Amino acid sequence: MLTANLHSHVARVRESTPLVHCLTNLVVTNFTANVLLALGTAPAMVVAREEVAQFAPIADALSVNLGTLDVPQTRAIRAAVEAANVANTPWILDPVAVGPLAFRTEFAFDLLDAKPAVIRGNASEIISLSGGTASGRGVDSTAATDATLDATQVLALKTQAVVAVTGATDYVTDGRRTVALSNGSPLMTRVTGVGCALSATVAAFVGACASRDAWFDATVAAIACSAIAGELAARDAALPGSFAVAYLDRLASLGADDIDKTLVLREIA
Amino acid sequence: MLTANLHSHVARVRESTPLVHCLTNLVVTNFTANVLLALGTAPAMVVAREEVAQFAPIADALSVNLGTLDVPQTRAIRAAVEAANVANTPWILDPVAVGPLAFRTEFAFDLLDAKPAVIRGNASEIISLSGGTASGRGVDSTAATDATLDATQVLALKTQAVVAVTGATDYVTDGRRTVALSNGSPLMTRVTGVGCALSATVAAFVGACASRDAWFDATVAAIACSAIAGELAARDAALPGSFAVAYLDRLASLGADDIDKTLVLREIA
Amino acid sequence: MLTANLHSHVARVRESTPLVHCLTNLVVTNFTANVLLALGTAPAMVVAREEVAQFAPIADALSVNLGTLDVPQTRAIRAAVEAANVANTPWILDPVAVGPLAFRTEFAFDLLDAKPAVIRGNASEIISLSGGTASGRGVDSTAATDATLDATQVLALKTQAVVAVTGATDYVTDGRRTVALSNGSPLMTRVTGVGCALSATVAAFVGACASRDAWFDATVAAIACSAIAGELAARDAALPGSFAVAYLDRLASLGADDIDKTLVLREIA
Repeated sequence: MLTANLHSHVARVRESTPLVHCLTNLVVTNFTANVLLALGTAPAMVVAREEVAQFAPIADALSVNLGTLDVPQTRAIRAAVEAANVANTPWILDPVAVGPLAFRTEFAFDLLDAKPAVIRGNASEIISLSGGTASGRGVDSTAATDATLDATQVLALKTQAVVAVTGATDYVTDGRRTVALSNGSPLMTRVTGVGCALSATVAAFVGACASRDAWFDATVAAIACSAIAGELAARDAALPGSFAVAYLDRLASLGADDIDKTLVLREIA
Repeated sequence: MLTANLHSHVARVRESTPLVHCLTNLVVTNFTANVLLALGTAPAMVVAREEVAQFAPIADALSVNLGTLDVPQTRAIRAAVEAANVANTPWILDPVAVGPLAFRTEFAFDLLDAKPAVIRGNASEIISLSGGTASGRGVDSTAATDATLDATQVLALKTQAVVAVTGATDYVTDGRRTVALSNGSPLMTRVTGVGCALSATVAAFVGACASRDAWFDATVAAIACSAIAGELAARDAALPGSFAVAYLDRLASLGADDIDKTLVLREIA
Repeated sequence: MLTANLHSHVARVRESTPLVHCLTNLVVTNFTANVLLALGTAPAMVVAREEVAQFAPIADALSVNLGTLDVPQTRAIRAAVEAANVANTPWILDPVAVGPLAFRTEFAFDLLDAKPAVIRGNASEIISLSGGTASGRGVDSTAATDATLDATQVLALKTQAVVAVTGATDYVTDGRRTVALSNGSPLMTRVTGVGCALSATVAAFVGACASRDAWFDATVAAIACSAIAGELAARDAALPGSFAVAYLDRLASLGADDIDKTLVLREIA
């Protein structure tokens, strides 16, 4: 993947300000919206089953996150995903804590049939969705990212989605190509919602694509932006409160130079 | 409007610490509470239909925001508004994204019959509520603020509410007097909830009024405080993460001098 | 209580990273999670009645906060508390605004039968729960902390819970021993959720205990950490926006030295 290609995805997101419909968890709504705004995109958090279908064709992408799933939200998500598919609006699945909790795990498997454009999760979540057994501990991942590479590719081939598993190293695959990114900072795990907001960021980048052929590169670009902003923010701030502020600032100011000087990316398959 | 009058509204809010009951959207609860606390007022976010009626007479004002409306919240809002009217507690309507979405639009029109003290929205929302057709794009406004001046006055006369439309220039009207404010910063649109929290701020200022004759001036004062704090915060911070922090700090420290040196206000009718 | 004992509680929390299940209010989810992450513990906000029972045995502690209680949440809380008791997972009750509002007050009294490990509230709330009459004004407390000492001890003896009442001075009692802490800063009342997040912090400290004999000391340690971090953060930042950031930073960096130099604690019974 050419870095030039990555630059063009970032530029397209900033120019087109994609409107991202987020059906996400109660913990991260505010931070997710601020991440999208920092990047120059437009968040929208329409939640009612009565409204989501009408909103799907207006939005450029839909981001679905299962972090605080309950029965009313399952109905809203089903309606939103269905309407998004009718409207050819790509949608992203963030399967938070799927594996140990039966209710959301069954729902997440159901959603796989509705053809997400991208699935982004941690190692435990992606292994669980691929049909394996992971040792999830709440919303944290205890599986080593490297060990999940096989599961990631299996899931991508099975669902025809781009699959991203994030951790110390991030992997993105469409089942054929696989890219590894090694940017970021451990401080990103000390602020709630960085991963959840990344899924919404992926939605923004995918929503700005002219065709589905660009979804893989768009996903890589979104993850690179988040990880590089985090890595640079960790130079500005060493503690989590000020790091969260610096992270938003770095997302807003992220330039081509930052990316060129910082990106650590390799194609591994 | 005399600036002295504006000062007295700010002083009254700080001295009386009005208790503001907020029925708002899931994205901005935290930020709204922090804005109210920074100003020295007391937020309260009682949400259940079973509780809102009992809370209405305790509160000094009620702020209703439709950003993430769903069916249970429509019931809570109806009960809260009805109880507020019985208790003579003024209530403020923030009709987020009204226009393109039928469910909330119908609900917002219903609420107009319940006599809000103030309606605050962006241009698209206010045009829609006045019966016109706006080109809303999610929660953003695409209509020029200037073009909405007529709609704003129509809505004020129809509802007998003070109507405020905020944007690059903010307008406040009661259908007879109209004031334009030109403070603020584009960074205010890069932090989620600044507008929503402003509606709660208007509620605080209106809740501190001795009589309804003061609601117009109170609304102007609330908008001036928010816009001036934003303008000053933009001198402290150029990026959205640190701007949000500076905005809260500026709201907390806002003095008569800041207002006198910064305010750009003109009466236009 | 020996300060050495307090140090060991802080160390144990950092080493064991207790997983804290929070059923809390919509205003403070994000801040609560960030407080827990800053301290080095693991927050989890599973909310659906369908999931809470399955999560209880995975979690090290459960924190229940009634701030935005509604009917669906009462069902989730009942299921979570019941499962926590079956699994011997300690749970903490934060009875926000109990007293003036009948719905949550009745529910809170019901919950007392389910044997919370710790109850933490402000003076009005604790007086109400002890059976007295407090002059609550929304979520704020208007009762002087000193005057509530009797009520606190009555409630502890009645429920066999550790009871903590926080304010300018904080008191912790199990009905026999009582400790007073005098750290903190008035700025802690200008940021929403500091008290709510403290309840989750108490849950983390209690969840890290080897036996229930340590719950009293663990509660004192949690309150000391929060109050000292607040006191130190007030040296870093004088206004509420930047204070909130500094508070998270101070929680993350809090060392034995900070505690030794700052702690003001006395045993009063």
